[in-house]
Amino acid sequence: MEVVKVGLLGLGTVGSGAVEVLTRNDDEISRRAGRNIRITAAADRDISRADFCKEKGIQFTDDAYEVVNNPEIDIIIELIGGYSPAKELVLKAIENGKHIVTANKALIALHGNEIFGAAQEKGVSVAFEASVAGGIPIIKAVREGLSANKIQWVAGIINGTGNFILTEMKDNKSDFADVLKEAQNLGYAEADPTFDIEGIDAAHKLTILASISYGIPLQFDKVFTEGITRITSMDIEYADELGYNIKHLGISKRTEKGIELRVHPTLLPKKQMLANVNGVMNAVMVNGDAVGSTMYYGAGAGSEPTASAVVADIIDVARSLAVDSESKVPSLAFYPKKMSQVPALDIEQVETGYYLRMEALDKSGVMADIARILSDQGVSIEALIQREPPSDNKFASIIMLTKKVSEKQMNDAIKAIESLDTINGKITRIRVEYLDC
Amino acid sequence: MEVVKVGLLGLGTVGSGAVEVLTRNDDEISRRAGRNIRITAAADRDISRADFCKEKGIQFTDDAYEVVNNPEIDIIIELIGGYSPAKELVLKAIENGKHIVTANKALIALHGNEIFGAAQEKGVSVAFEASVAGGIPIIKAVREGLSANKIQWVAGIINGTGNFILTEMKDNKSDFADVLKEAQNLGYAEADPTFDIEGIDAAHKLTILASISYGIPLQFDKVFTEGITRITSMDIEYADELGYNIKHLGISKRTEKGIELRVHPTLLPKKQMLANVNGVMNAVMVNGDAVGSTMYYGAGAGSEPTASAVVADIIDVARSLAVDSESKVPSLAFYPKKMSQVPALDIEQVETGYYLRMEALDKSGVMADIARILSDQGVSIEALIQREPPSDNKFASIIMLTKKVSEKQMNDAIKAIESLDTINGKITRIRVEYLDC
Repeated sequence: MEVVKVGLLGLGTVGSGAVEVLTRNDDEISRRAGRNIRITAAADRDISRADFCKEKGIQFTDDAYEVVNNPEIDIIIELIGGYSPAKELVLKAIENGKHIVTANKALIALHGNEIFGAAQEKGVSVAFEASVAGGIPIIKAVREGLSANKIQWVAGIINGTGNFILTEMKDNKSDFADVLKEAQNLGYAEADPTFDIEGIDAAHKLTILASISYGIPLQFDKVFTEGITRITSMDIEYADELGYNIKHLGISKRTEKGIELRVHPTLLPKKQMLANVNGVMNAVMVNGDAVGSTMYYGAGAGSEPTASAVVADIIDVARSLAVDSESKVPSLAFYPKKMSQVPALDIEQVETGYYLRMEALDKSGVMADIARILSDQGVSIEALIQREPPSDNKFASIIMLTKKVSEKQMNDAIKAIESLDTINGKITRIRVEYLDC
Repeated sequence: MEVVKVGLLGLGTVGSGAVEVLTRNDDEISRRAGRNIRITAAADRDISRADFCKEKGIQFTDDAYEVVNNPEIDIIIELIGGYSPAKELVLKAIENGKHIVTANKALIALHGNEIFGAAQEKGVSVAFEASVAGGIPIIKAVREGLSANKIQWVAGIINGTGNFILTEMKDNKSDFADVLKEAQNLGYAEADPTFDIEGIDAAHKLTILASISYGIPLQFDKVFTEGITRITSMDIEYADELGYNIKHLGISKRTEKGIELRVHPTLLPKKQMLANVNGVMNAVMVNGDAVGSTMYYGAGAGSEPTASAVVADIIDVARSLAVDSESKVPSLAFYPKKMSQVPALDIEQVETGYYLRMEALDKSGVMADIARILSDQGVSIEALIQREPPSDNKFASIIMLTKKVSEKQMNDAIKAIESLDTINGKITRIRVEYLDC
């Protein structure tokens, strides 16, 4: 049987998972791929990984370029992460005529247009299933499985760390900071959790999902990004009382004005499937004009789940080695010359419902002032909870859900309400999505 | 741009949906497929469809062989359904060197081995995404998205009619017969609903899922099949009280002894994602050794959802037209020479938990007799509800959940309990699945 030779860059969690999966399932995989797939060389800066490679019969080096320049290798797996030197290595490998498999969402979201351009010129594939939602084959589902559809919207829980934190905050009525520490102890959050809790990781993934859904270039800089650091367990409880769960979503919608690209905490009605995706699990809902709403659920991170996607990509590339590049499934779902330049919407143009929580002086006329401001801005109230002030406090809590209104109108309304003498401090604002499905 | 010419057999719900989707999304689809896809000819026995075709610029005939023998056509879409003449037409089309796209689960489940064999000889593709779970790209997910995994089990709600009926029975505390009538009025159930309510349709789909999951030949005759006709709203309520929903599942598991293939009503713990899939929606959970549990959710039937899968298959075939057939993704996920002959298990060898409901004389010693029989057969009780008899009845209801035990042991236990003088009539038995995820 033909042997496909693979070079691996990065022997961390996912890299060692890929070696394990390819070794353990060698028979099953060759029955599917029609070829034997072998990792023959691997590189990592940490030379203590040499032993692991020796044990597995893999040539080890601490110089990634040695692997990238090895003429015997057909496919390079890039699992280093980050922008540099991952980008330089991938471009060099493409220049050398090698196919690329990567789990690097940051690299694809920011430099994908350049990388796919280079790959197209050389007639090689760049596969990146593992870059979004770990083991869930969401790229394949959108790019190939739903290819008959005009995709209308995509909404996903695409950061396991954030979802774990929100789930724990709800289940244990805990505060954000405490749960973050717990997540770090459990290994679900990095020592520097910024990318996860500030929504940057989710924004990378949303950038990729939007591109393959609508056939638009990757445009990470257009994503409105808000993290989960300001969500309190109090808001989670109020949302619960109103019939909602708070989830950190990546959302992209096709509208007449352009494409919405946004990552933020979101109230979702509890009966929604997405609202019930808990812990570190990921799920992506995709709505197409023909198929309606579909959902894809599974582990969004971890060694073997992510390796599952990496190895599936290797098998896809291995199967296609005999194929002329023109006939392949295009990397970004649509053929490069057919990319659409429809604009990404500014967040102020986006319309959602809103959950608002504010502290107001407990005296007559306050609610009338608030209602007037909202009405002036075209904001309708859908539900309202008013809590008497505790005995040691003169401020009452007002919680409301509004109907859909533009972010611009809501910004103006919030500004006006916050400027009232009767309102204490800042208003908490969380967007509400109903997902028409 | 290159034009791919498609011939359509059958202009019913799905056929007209496919025409609509291809017409409406022509631009989006050619951006993805790199080719223009045109249905140029269509056949239906009902000549009243000629007008629809004329309007769409499609050549109409009432003789399907005219389309199958048309030398200009590259791909044949078979949407006639049933075994004959679908089988003869598909084999003739393959003989003529045409690629096949079909939504016909019965045809694939029963005659797939023969059809794929013929297609392999001629070097053409047979695509059948629409045959399982309508618009959900589950074939692609298992065959390509999870190709790195040793699939451990598959469990799915793969018949929308059955799921609609069970959902309505629960929500409205209605009886099976009433809800069936409602489903027929709404068009969710056929005039002859046998295939849906007796589980045959689900068994067709499970046959296909199992083959592509494990690389085993299609073996419909080995599927243990039980329908939903004997489920009462009383059992649904008792299950609810115990923390479960009753769903009609297709389940296949890889065990050391062989492959389980079974379709039957099943108690699922309510916290399971699958337990919360309601109405006509479908969902399939797939567990792989690397990825863990993943789930795929969406519309399992209907004109455009099913057409979504049909058209995605056409796009896949169109993209691959330049490709040598050896390099293609194999129809049944594994290359034909690598099919495994691992046996399908007899239902008596299968182990599950059980929900049992029986009527017993309300007198001392009865429970002791039942407990002794269960214990003799190695059956452990997990939970028990005992209801006093109503005043007009001398029989008490006993409901129990058991731990996992083989169907053989349970059959013996039920037979022994039913033969007790103190037990009235037959015992109701519904299997319980926990789905290790």
